[in-house]
Amino acid sequence: MSCAIARLDANSADFDRALEALLAWDSVSDPAVNQAVDDIIASVKADGDKAVLHFTEKFDRLSARSFDELRVPAARLQRALKAIDPEQKRALEIAAERIRSYHEHQRQDSWQYREADGTLLGQQITPLDRVGLYVPGGKASYPSSVLMNAIPAKVAGVPELIMTTPTPGGEVNEMVLAAAAIAGVDEVICIGGAQAVAALAYGTESLGKVDKITGPGNIFVATAKRAVFGQVAIDMIAGPSEILIYCDGGTNPDWIAMDLFSQAEHDEQAQSILISEDVDFLNRVQESIDRLLPDLEREAIARASLEGRGALIQVANREQAVSIINRIAPEHLELSVSDPESMLADIRHAGAIFMGRYTAEALGDYCAGPNHVLPTSGTARFSSPLGVYDFQKRSSLIMCSAEGASTLGKVASPLARGESLEAHARSAEYRILPED
Amino acid sequence: MSCAIARLDANSADFDRALEALLAWDSVSDPAVNQAVDDIIASVKADGDKAVLHFTEKFDRLSARSFDELRVPAARLQRALKAIDPEQKRALEIAAERIRSYHEHQRQDSWQYREADGTLLGQQITPLDRVGLYVPGGKASYPSSVLMNAIPAKVAGVPELIMTTPTPGGEVNEMVLAAAAIAGVDEVICIGGAQAVAALAYGTESLGKVDKITGPGNIFVATAKRAVFGQVAIDMIAGPSEILIYCDGGTNPDWIAMDLFSQAEHDEQAQSILISEDVDFLNRVQESIDRLLPDLEREAIARASLEGRGALIQVANREQAVSIINRIAPEHLELSVSDPESMLADIRHAGAIFMGRYTAEALGDYCAGPNHVLPTSGTARFSSPLGVYDFQKRSSLIMCSAEGASTLGKVASPLARGESLEAHARSAEYRILPED
Repeated sequence: MSCAIARLDANSADFDRALEALLAWDSVSDPAVNQAVDDIIASVKADGDKAVLHFTEKFDRLSARSFDELRVPAARLQRALKAIDPEQKRALEIAAERIRSYHEHQRQDSWQYREADGTLLGQQITPLDRVGLYVPGGKASYPSSVLMNAIPAKVAGVPELIMTTPTPGGEVNEMVLAAAAIAGVDEVICIGGAQAVAALAYGTESLGKVDKITGPGNIFVATAKRAVFGQVAIDMIAGPSEILIYCDGGTNPDWIAMDLFSQAEHDEQAQSILISEDVDFLNRVQESIDRLLPDLEREAIARASLEGRGALIQVANREQAVSIINRIAPEHLELSVSDPESMLADIRHAGAIFMGRYTAEALGDYCAGPNHVLPTSGTARFSSPLGVYDFQKRSSLIMCSAEGASTLGKVASPLARGESLEAHARSAEYRILPED
Repeated sequence: MSCAIARLDANSADFDRALEALLAWDSVSDPAVNQAVDDIIASVKADGDKAVLHFTEKFDRLSARSFDELRVPAARLQRALKAIDPEQKRALEIAAERIRSYHEHQRQDSWQYREADGTLLGQQITPLDRVGLYVPGGKASYPSSVLMNAIPAKVAGVPELIMTTPTPGGEVNEMVLAAAAIAGVDEVICIGGAQAVAALAYGTESLGKVDKITGPGNIFVATAKRAVFGQVAIDMIAGPSEILIYCDGGTNPDWIAMDLFSQAEHDEQAQSILISEDVDFLNRVQESIDRLLPDLEREAIARASLEGRGALIQVANREQAVSIINRIAPEHLELSVSDPESMLADIRHAGAIFMGRYTAEALGDYCAGPNHVLPTSGTARFSSPLGVYDFQKRSSLIMCSAEGASTLGKVASPLARGESLEAHARSAEYRILPED
């Protein structure tokens, strides 16, 4: 059965409208979910541990007499590390090392400089004190996500990294625990849902509140993160995953088809788009899709995604391709061309750019080094991949010399008086030297 | 009349509770405001220009036949620059130059490195395309805020910076227009309130949508910014301004009193706190407060702020002072001591640190160079001053050599299969070299 993936022509009259419709995606805001989440948060704020235990029993069918029973001992993490398949363990360790090495390049250091009159200016950069990492339970529990969230926080120097993960019916994911051990997570607690987010944001008798919460989750988790935003920092609320591939026609069409599948297999809402000026190549990729798709374990999901949200787009030339790329601002951009570096200066918006025929997005998802938590749904226009910078913050430094304060006082004073802020003006004027 | 500012002792039994009560501040979420803002946003999304014109007439008593009539011509900005007081113009120009010079240090450049097998990794850093800057109208319209918001965006390289400011009854603030000219704002539009935020976030027939909205505003503006968060990026939603001064007792108590006033005069909810181990000094500052406050133009506001939310706190020693500083995570921290640099390593959370007896916070508010948009209400635990980094975003770069892709494919494959993502695995496996 042929896969009915949309075929668009960038030079047809209705292309703009068709592209708009293809990209349309609204984050669902469900009033019933909002109400349920607000109730859970209010309950955890009021009753602390007791509320968390109650919801954990109710939603995860996990009964505990005390909060401490929900903590995973460090020795248990080490046991998971010994229990998992050796090849997978080795792969996790290599991936962790590469992610760490890449993210080291993102660490920012404090800086300062002195002006001629002795005044010092600068910025002191420090890690966050405590960070909460949410890891989904069950099927959506990805050890790679543990590495991608935890390692940047540790590279930033966050001393306390608390991971929460639901264990429905008490079932734990050994790979997730092993990844937590490898990444240096400081504490793992078997709680999930909005109650975990609320406990991290507000604290309970047994859990100190954190400063930031990162990590993916279902709609209850996403809604709870949005609700506690401001009380703590949060990472982005992710939409469905997307890939945009631009190919000059010189890559094996089977490879491109599989790269499209690697996005489409995530879920029905995922989006896979291929752009090329080579019509024959688009036809060959369609043939590859039709031939390879039926063999895929997750065929049904991938087919629904490709037929519902995928597209093969024909463009007139590279310039038009770049214009569409910047219009979409894709989460993942694959430049499957012979000269990807020559295109970089024109790419204004993309979460991650996979360059050349060999750079499958899947390599970046696991082990190339860069983060796989990326801005979705066009938010690459203003957002960045998760990084070390998300776990550092800055304090401005100002130390005026007597002479510097006198000079600045004479500038600040008229501006403050212009804004009718007399105390500002007088506070500055006190520092003007008498001889000046 | 003595100012009834609270006096606390950090070693008293109820200090923790008293400090907690002092710091308590809840951002008000008003259901009526939320509804009104949601209606305005929906209306602007549906009717574009027409809705903006309608609300501008309704709320700002400013009637325009077309959106273009609300644009301020570039020549009008230059006229404002010529019309303002020469001393204030000179001060604005010096401030702008110092702010620009400081923020140049924050600009981040793209980076990349190559591994032994030829694989390239890095990050491409680019400015946002279009940014909206909200500037309040009337009394709360501060030219210094225009400089502090616009200059970092321009240093980042943002090509299009659109400023909106309401002009109730058509009244414009010449200093604000002059500041916009000096800062290099690309366009000024006389609209305000939730309708301006909605127009910037969603665009209208006459206004292209922006990628980020920054700048302060009243509760309607703040609520609208929160509502469009996700559609566009926003800066922080600020709480009341605060200063925390730690003094060793060696600074002129009049200076310290005036520094406290410079915060308190902003509004009744502003918070001014002084910490010292020197009881006599606290008494002398109280005397200065009592003597200087009655002369202040904004005495009523400052008094209400000091009596409602201010405090003089006695501590046993510097260690205790540092612990309180980190507990409060103040927006503005003044270290009015002889050796402020020796304290820096222990200060974990503060928006801006003003060091030494000469560095009045007011100097930083206007012209020292660092930004005056700072994290409030303890959010310095996880947030930074507004900076160039808020107007740049990053794209990860990955370009695998054939050999690199083969090596990484063998790591990604078992991890993908461990997560039951077969297409990811096969996409990686295609890139494993046959001889490997």
